[in-house]
Amino acid sequence: MSCNTPTDVVFSFHGLAERGGRTGKHKDGWGLILYDGPAVRAFREPKPAAHSALAEFVRNNPTRTLLAVAHIRKRTRGELSLRNTHPFTRQLWDRTFAFAHNGTVKKSRNVRLRRFLPLGTTDSEWAFCVLLERLDARFLRAPSDTALASAIAEVCQELGARGTFNFVLGDGRRLYARCHTKLAFIIRQHPFATATLSDSDLSVDFSRVTTPRDRVAIVATSPLTKDERWTTGQRGDLWVFEAGRRVATLRS
Amino acid sequence: MSCNTPTDVVFSFHGLAERGGRTGKHKDGWGLILYDGPAVRAFREPKPAAHSALAEFVRNNPTRTLLAVAHIRKRTRGELSLRNTHPFTRQLWDRTFAFAHNGTVKKSRNVRLRRFLPLGTTDSEWAFCVLLERLDARFLRAPSDTALASAIAEVCQELGARGTFNFVLGDGRRLYARCHTKLAFIIRQHPFATATLSDSDLSVDFSRVTTPRDRVAIVATSPLTKDERWTTGQRGDLWVFEAGRRVATLRS
Repeated sequence: MSCNTPTDVVFSFHGLAERGGRTGKHKDGWGLILYDGPAVRAFREPKPAAHSALAEFVRNNPTRTLLAVAHIRKRTRGELSLRNTHPFTRQLWDRTFAFAHNGTVKKSRNVRLRRFLPLGTTDSEWAFCVLLERLDARFLRAPSDTALASAIAEVCQELGARGTFNFVLGDGRRLYARCHTKLAFIIRQHPFATATLSDSDLSVDFSRVTTPRDRVAIVATSPLTKDERWTTGQRGDLWVFEAGRRVATLRS
Repeated sequence: MSCNTPTDVVFSFHGLAERGGRTGKHKDGWGLILYDGPAVRAFREPKPAAHSALAEFVRNNPTRTLLAVAHIRKRTRGELSLRNTHPFTRQLWDRTFAFAHNGTVKKSRNVRLRRFLPLGTTDSEWAFCVLLERLDARFLRAPSDTALASAIAEVCQELGARGTFNFVLGDGRRLYARCHTKLAFIIRQHPFATATLSDSDLSVDFSRVTTPRDRVAIVATSPLTKDERWTTGQRGDLWVFEAGRRVATLRS
């Protein structure tokens, strides 16, 4: 989620969490990163979101944010553990990066990681470390938005060649989302309507909880609502969102 | 807290949280880092622990851990915000470091930070970044326990010369605690007795919730209980705890 005004993520998180063990089979952990300036609140558990006391706390205690990254896991590589639970986070420059991956990439011993080492055993965290290692090698400090997006697109090509590389990535300012096989987004803006979750009976009339200036972009593997028109990605699309607006689409 | 068997931190955290706005004046935020292998669960909020829904969740949903670092903040430098809320965390090598500071050190522009940059504006996070920068410059990978402890002691001398540098630091394996002006620890082991918090009526008969092999070390700025014998530190003591045992004391 990327927004231009602090927004709580409860509605979308509720839909996502339902897939974590109730309507979906992504029961091997869940995580939610809420940015607050350059810092993050991180909630993560290696168990089903649908049956998690912490996930319930998150739903019952809405925290507003401009940028959030969430994930529910269906395990392919790596054991069920906190260290293998997305989103992964690392500091680079004066930013916190948060990364959630959908797919499987092939690790390689030929890629030397020096500064960013995985804590766990997933291919996803390994890919995140490769991405950060490349960005760090290229830029001594945080570069311009354009230069950063191009560099991320380049690394996507490298990692996309190693398997399936759908992801969402936050850096505290922008949301990067890469489509390999499956990705969709929607931008909610004036005039707001009612939306109903695909995975639950919950609906929200957004016109009652927003102002006409609000903009909220939501990206997900597949649409979270059944009565809104989501845009689906093409293989290689790298979308960049800022303040609830899609500001760039790169090929990667 | 450092233990040899997974232990929940609720009893000590309860006492600490009481000082966060009820019995004490440390009302400018609180944080709790619970290690799970090399990864951490992080709970942090820039408001009083005594009146925090998240802190209440932590108390009501005990999570067992071998190593925990907690902090309640009385603001001296830096605004009230999440990014300024201890404990601060960073990855270095294949470890997560968590750092909580009590005191004030003087920042210096002459210290060049390249890899570890503060997200916030506190002197404490700056000092943590200096510490990590020095360790990173010295060791390409995680060194031996002895070499790491010596290196930390050296940086303590540098930073201790800049002000008041009491801290607790975890690296996922060990707990390092440095006394500048104020620090105390206790080791709970067989035969266990009843302990009563200094800041609340709560007491626990540890003999009922432990086995004879359990060992738990607790370090705090000042004793958390009123009926146990805590050991207080001397200026410059750097204690190292592992698995509930004090394994070294260095001068720093």
